[in-house]
Amino acid sequence: MEIHIDTDRLSRELETLASFTDSPPPSVTRVLYTPTDLAAREYLKGLCREAGLEVREDPLGNTFARWAGEDPQAGAVGTGSHVDAIPHAGRYDGTVGVLGGLEAIRALRSAGFRPKRSLELLIFTSEEPTRFGIGCLGSRVLSGALSPEAARALRDPEGLSLEEARRQAGFGGELGQVPLPEGYYSAFVELHIEQGPLLEREGVPLGLVTAIAAPAAGWFELEGQGGHAGAVLMPDRKDAFTAAAELALAVEQAARQSGSPDTVATTGICEVFPGAVNSIPSRVRLSLDLRDTRLETRDRAFEQIQRHAERIRLERGVEVRYTPTNADPPARCGPQVLEALHHAAQACGLPYLEMVSRAYHDSLFMARVAPTAMLFIPCKNGWSHRPDEYASPQHIEQGVRVLAHTLAELAGS
Amino acid sequence: MEIHIDTDRLSRELETLASFTDSPPPSVTRVLYTPTDLAAREYLKGLCREAGLEVREDPLGNTFARWAGEDPQAGAVGTGSHVDAIPHAGRYDGTVGVLGGLEAIRALRSAGFRPKRSLELLIFTSEEPTRFGIGCLGSRVLSGALSPEAARALRDPEGLSLEEARRQAGFGGELGQVPLPEGYYSAFVELHIEQGPLLEREGVPLGLVTAIAAPAAGWFELEGQGGHAGAVLMPDRKDAFTAAAELALAVEQAARQSGSPDTVATTGICEVFPGAVNSIPSRVRLSLDLRDTRLETRDRAFEQIQRHAERIRLERGVEVRYTPTNADPPARCGPQVLEALHHAAQACGLPYLEMVSRAYHDSLFMARVAPTAMLFIPCKNGWSHRPDEYASPQHIEQGVRVLAHTLAELAGS
Repeated sequence: MEIHIDTDRLSRELETLASFTDSPPPSVTRVLYTPTDLAAREYLKGLCREAGLEVREDPLGNTFARWAGEDPQAGAVGTGSHVDAIPHAGRYDGTVGVLGGLEAIRALRSAGFRPKRSLELLIFTSEEPTRFGIGCLGSRVLSGALSPEAARALRDPEGLSLEEARRQAGFGGELGQVPLPEGYYSAFVELHIEQGPLLEREGVPLGLVTAIAAPAAGWFELEGQGGHAGAVLMPDRKDAFTAAAELALAVEQAARQSGSPDTVATTGICEVFPGAVNSIPSRVRLSLDLRDTRLETRDRAFEQIQRHAERIRLERGVEVRYTPTNADPPARCGPQVLEALHHAAQACGLPYLEMVSRAYHDSLFMARVAPTAMLFIPCKNGWSHRPDEYASPQHIEQGVRVLAHTLAELAGS
Repeated sequence: MEIHIDTDRLSRELETLASFTDSPPPSVTRVLYTPTDLAAREYLKGLCREAGLEVREDPLGNTFARWAGEDPQAGAVGTGSHVDAIPHAGRYDGTVGVLGGLEAIRALRSAGFRPKRSLELLIFTSEEPTRFGIGCLGSRVLSGALSPEAARALRDPEGLSLEEARRQAGFGGELGQVPLPEGYYSAFVELHIEQGPLLEREGVPLGLVTAIAAPAAGWFELEGQGGHAGAVLMPDRKDAFTAAAELALAVEQAARQSGSPDTVATTGICEVFPGAVNSIPSRVRLSLDLRDTRLETRDRAFEQIQRHAERIRLERGVEVRYTPTNADPPARCGPQVLEALHHAAQACGLPYLEMVSRAYHDSLFMARVAPTAMLFIPCKNGWSHRPDEYASPQHIEQGVRVLAHTLAELAGS
């Protein structure tokens, strides 16, 4: 089967999608259920309908665009990713898997392919944790990793519950309808930029992801004693921010010394209260994001962080509390999907690496309900989550072509 | 002369003033030129007029309420403080010197005192640096420490210039009219809560301030490399926030090791960009506030901080820049004003300590244009800049009574 990818159209669509942003281009900011997010969804649903796909949304806003197969009762083959973007991010993270997935389906239709199983593009709601503090919200609920009850109670920084926010955004129905029925998908595959430097460094256009790293995330809250910056002498201070600074360095050190090069830890948010030049910080909220491909080394690093938190508490007289947001186990990818990816890469004559995903993805949760794998393409300098994130049209084309072949094998004809 | 302080009225007025706040009581947030600040000013001007004082405002919003003396050409005797409050502060910082100063003048009027020199209450604009990043804005311009040109160009976090902001708030005229003519004041005295624990610890109701500590303030900007929190391995990172954390700890250490117990240093604001759980911080703004009663030890601490900033830059590959906001010399208080304070405390039969002010005050700048001193009263636990800041009615009464006697001696009759 000769498959033609329309790279120009795909580039234009990526560019148009990037124009839905709440920060100045080239940065992209698209937060869950904002008018900008909803406008981007309308644009995407329009493209799906133009491509002849049947579009539906679930009560959370997960969006499904289906090409019914000859056996519509058989478990479908899914592909897709997300289109939300953290503040001041770039244009390729997630979107390549959504628009690339759509292009793969369009290419198969143009090539005259007739799938046995239905093919479905899935646009996940809120892969990024920006608004409700938890990543992969859509796929967590779809897969049953997060119960509808727990999801309903999530609150955004303004105190709005997810239940209120989704209804205000126009997504009705009950969250209990979101989890996928058993066997809904026979396989799932997600195309994504690598978000790391390996493919570019090796000069290889494709990465076949065999496992997805295990994230643990949560919040430290530190509570000390405020006071006037000029008046309280150093020995009398219980500065919550310098305590948080020490903790942030302990987090960094724990990741560096875990014994695994795959352990990474980040304190990406530090909120200082009251936040005045001449006021000793009384309270700090510090985020923790700790990941590893192995649960043991991640747990070891986490224990070291906790020991330092306790030491800081005792030495500085500053209270330190940790509230976990999640602590998900890593996922192994489905052998059958990986095999289809191998075949597809070979059919296209493209070399590939087997690798792990250090970033986590909706596929981490889809792997709980269907055999799942991921396909990576290189991105410039391994950068992502920043305005200069970049993947070349050629690499995108190669990824989409291999994805189309993979979907064809998985769907059967 | 028998002087009676109306403590109940003064307590009620302090309570009413605290009700002008942009944060929930008991916290007080009153930022320059906000509707809340302007409403509080209206309230105060009303009280001054009720007391029979003549009220005028300068183009910056410094407010003068005058009781004309028998020799109106002679340099006036000034007293006063500020009413702006940093976010989530308390109700006594500054306000005790404003409403207490007013009460002292009212008490002298009630006692039948007839001043030779005019007595003037001065309410300074923006002692706190909240909006324009520079403390003692009003007194800096009044005293010539900050030129009208430099003041005009200051910008708030939204980019609004001081020139625009003051005009929007209704303060017209030219900033060139703000600096005080030579000899305008023959003496200035400011009543204030101590903002430190010494008076309470010693059980002494009054502090006579002989010197005001020297503040240096500015901003560090750190610029590293952003990226995805899951994807960039630890050795490849240039995390601007962990670099800032190390710098904050270096600031703390420099103050602790300066060789002077009076050196204090604070990093009260830390802004992390982009500020997402799963994003490596690429940029951080960190405030520095460094004070001492001696310029030498302050300068030595600052040099040590700069050496650490350079080391962090080299070790982490993160750019570190420092932009000073100010670096003012300390002030010695006026012997003649201190003598009047001594006499007044003795007349009231109240014990006192001589002490330095570690916090800085508008008096630091008033000392440039007139003999100036400060009178401290105890505050609970030395706390200030927090909602539970507290000074007892009895301590306030004693402070106001001594202030009234001081003003009477300085004004003559």
